[in-house]
Amino acid sequence: MFHSNTNYQRLQGSYLFSTIARKVNAFKETHPEVELIRLGIGDVTQPIAPSIIKAMHAAVEEMGNPDTFHGYAPDLGYDFLRKAIAGEYREMGCSIAEDEVFVSDGAKSDSANIQEIFHKDAKVAVCDPVYPVYVDSNVMAGRSGEWETEKNRYSRYIYMTCSEENGFTPEFPEEDPDMIYLCFPNNPTGMTISKEKLQEWVDYANRIGAVIIYDAAYEAYISDPEVPHSIYQCSGAETCAIEIRSFSKNAGFTGVRLGFTVVPKALKDADGISMNSLWARRHGTCYNGAPYIIQKAGEAVYSEQGQKEIREQIAYYMKNAAYIREGLESIGLTVYGGVNAPYIWLKCPDGMDSWTFFDRLLTEAHVVGTPGSGFGAAGEGFFRLTAFGTYENTVAAVERIKAWLA
Amino acid sequence: MFHSNTNYQRLQGSYLFSTIARKVNAFKETHPEVELIRLGIGDVTQPIAPSIIKAMHAAVEEMGNPDTFHGYAPDLGYDFLRKAIAGEYREMGCSIAEDEVFVSDGAKSDSANIQEIFHKDAKVAVCDPVYPVYVDSNVMAGRSGEWETEKNRYSRYIYMTCSEENGFTPEFPEEDPDMIYLCFPNNPTGMTISKEKLQEWVDYANRIGAVIIYDAAYEAYISDPEVPHSIYQCSGAETCAIEIRSFSKNAGFTGVRLGFTVVPKALKDADGISMNSLWARRHGTCYNGAPYIIQKAGEAVYSEQGQKEIREQIAYYMKNAAYIREGLESIGLTVYGGVNAPYIWLKCPDGMDSWTFFDRLLTEAHVVGTPGSGFGAAGEGFFRLTAFGTYENTVAAVERIKAWLA
Repeated sequence: MFHSNTNYQRLQGSYLFSTIARKVNAFKETHPEVELIRLGIGDVTQPIAPSIIKAMHAAVEEMGNPDTFHGYAPDLGYDFLRKAIAGEYREMGCSIAEDEVFVSDGAKSDSANIQEIFHKDAKVAVCDPVYPVYVDSNVMAGRSGEWETEKNRYSRYIYMTCSEENGFTPEFPEEDPDMIYLCFPNNPTGMTISKEKLQEWVDYANRIGAVIIYDAAYEAYISDPEVPHSIYQCSGAETCAIEIRSFSKNAGFTGVRLGFTVVPKALKDADGISMNSLWARRHGTCYNGAPYIIQKAGEAVYSEQGQKEIREQIAYYMKNAAYIREGLESIGLTVYGGVNAPYIWLKCPDGMDSWTFFDRLLTEAHVVGTPGSGFGAAGEGFFRLTAFGTYENTVAAVERIKAWLA
Repeated sequence: MFHSNTNYQRLQGSYLFSTIARKVNAFKETHPEVELIRLGIGDVTQPIAPSIIKAMHAAVEEMGNPDTFHGYAPDLGYDFLRKAIAGEYREMGCSIAEDEVFVSDGAKSDSANIQEIFHKDAKVAVCDPVYPVYVDSNVMAGRSGEWETEKNRYSRYIYMTCSEENGFTPEFPEEDPDMIYLCFPNNPTGMTISKEKLQEWVDYANRIGAVIIYDAAYEAYISDPEVPHSIYQCSGAETCAIEIRSFSKNAGFTGVRLGFTVVPKALKDADGISMNSLWARRHGTCYNGAPYIIQKAGEAVYSEQGQKEIREQIAYYMKNAAYIREGLESIGLTVYGGVNAPYIWLKCPDGMDSWTFFDRLLTEAHVVGTPGSGFGAAGEGFFRLTAFGTYENTVAAVERIKAWLA
């Protein structure tokens, strides 16, 4: 009789945000009168900007007319969007060609699928705490080794601990990895990496022959000119880095679904095989392109009016971030992030563990956040709040937390 | 230094339709004056139906308003759409629950990704000829064995030859497989399977402990009441079958992107592990849901007006299918399919091989089709035409072919 993928049995519990959703729903059922404020899952609340809405209406109209109808999209993305993306890189001083850009339905899919083009025995390095998708997708693919309960870690991963001691930036691991996942501005800690430090990582990866999978989903929140927006701003990154980007956080596309991944043609494995051609093959075989309507929405993001409108949204969320940060600091909490990132990473007071803080915040203050330990063993004792709520809710949540901890 | 996925090196050439696109583009460059008619790739030409366009406009409007904005969708699909799909199954007499339906961005993605929840050593049975995605996705996952050039086949696959001799319906293989890919109405042959014969396959799969991955993307084209629309119309299918469905061909969503997969909760592996829970975990970890706007479009397909409009589109394409079939038969060609399916599978005349027929049809008759050998060794000597063109182009293409072969 048939067997299933045995690697799935090594996954720990359910996906973090599903667990949170279950706990929240259970509380709501027993307390239907309570109005919860959600600063947990990184979902945005501001509507899609007017110029993007206009572009989507126009695209919908095209789809209803025989002369302008669009069937199958090019697997790798429409030229108009790949050109706009390559243009943005040019403006950042990075030379990324259109055929190095692969349009997709979002950064989560790409983050999970990118490991498929690597060798099954590749050694994987991840930060701790970390966005769970990098970890889980490699568990499913069989690269994790066994789960070690006493360590709260997988035996075969190379963990790079990000702690208060190292300012939440990873250090080079002792053992050489093949794949290194980095995310800056970081989810969950909201911390950034300097261009100088990122250059060191690029040099390190080139030296040992590893690939950095660089998740830049939150680059739009960077205001500090010393913080790089792309890994390709570092010299030599084209031979050692893949970059994943999202429209979810810069333009509020969490429910619209659009992202892209850059795989430079100069990135080659030990046998000289082009990773760009492997990803093109994976995309062409296992994916059928993002919807025309959605790609037109993505194009509108790059228009002058679109840029103006999304900058206003980002400023709105960063005002929230500052409010949370300052509010929590004012009552003596230790707070990280929230400056060049929409995430605030706070140290749970009184030595509380992350899930206790989650449960108490939910049931006593009626605010939903994300327990730091859900992002890895090193996240224990920390807690993530997001700036993606409405300003009114953000203010109310901070007031609730202040009153609760007073 | 890092290595890439070695399985990719076993892939033969590029994805079939990419090769065709390259050949067509090369011809167009040297013959810019020629107007080609494309009956090759299975892409539709009729615009999206009015009631669906209306639903998408309304959904776009919602996304631009703070009170009706939708962020992250539920990973597995919105309830409104899963309910509509489960309702359609109920009308067909199949008891499929909402939580057995997984909404996705299309049948191609699901066809390629579904193998991930199976054991890495699972034995795979495919028809020959076959939709290349089943073959290539399992090559990438390492289940194919080596490519054997002399046989034009992979060493570890179990091939079920579909030929004129067996009416293009597969027979039970001699060796027991773990995964069996079946597609009816068939792509590429356009042939169907009777309910009685499909019941035999379900009984066989249950007996040997295999899973049938049933691709029903073309079910909307069935008019014969004896031909099943779903494998769940056979008794016992819930313990041995996964069904993949598409909105691309029934509602013209090739550029809109929507599909779904049914994984019954009763489907369990040798250790009693629920395949439904594994697919839910894969979906939740590696995917972030189909866009709200697109799921609302899917809902509109199930409305009374939507059903009326898409039935007209299907009738339009089936009129094309009949025209091709009758036209080619009138000049003495041997033709299969095109009755309960939008594909016409013709035998190349004069013992011509498939790619020669493709090249001559392209350069001499200026019609683009798909060489049968692109779908597998047993497709050699055959050729696929699709009914998805406009009626005017379909008529013109048939006249060109008639004139060319006269």
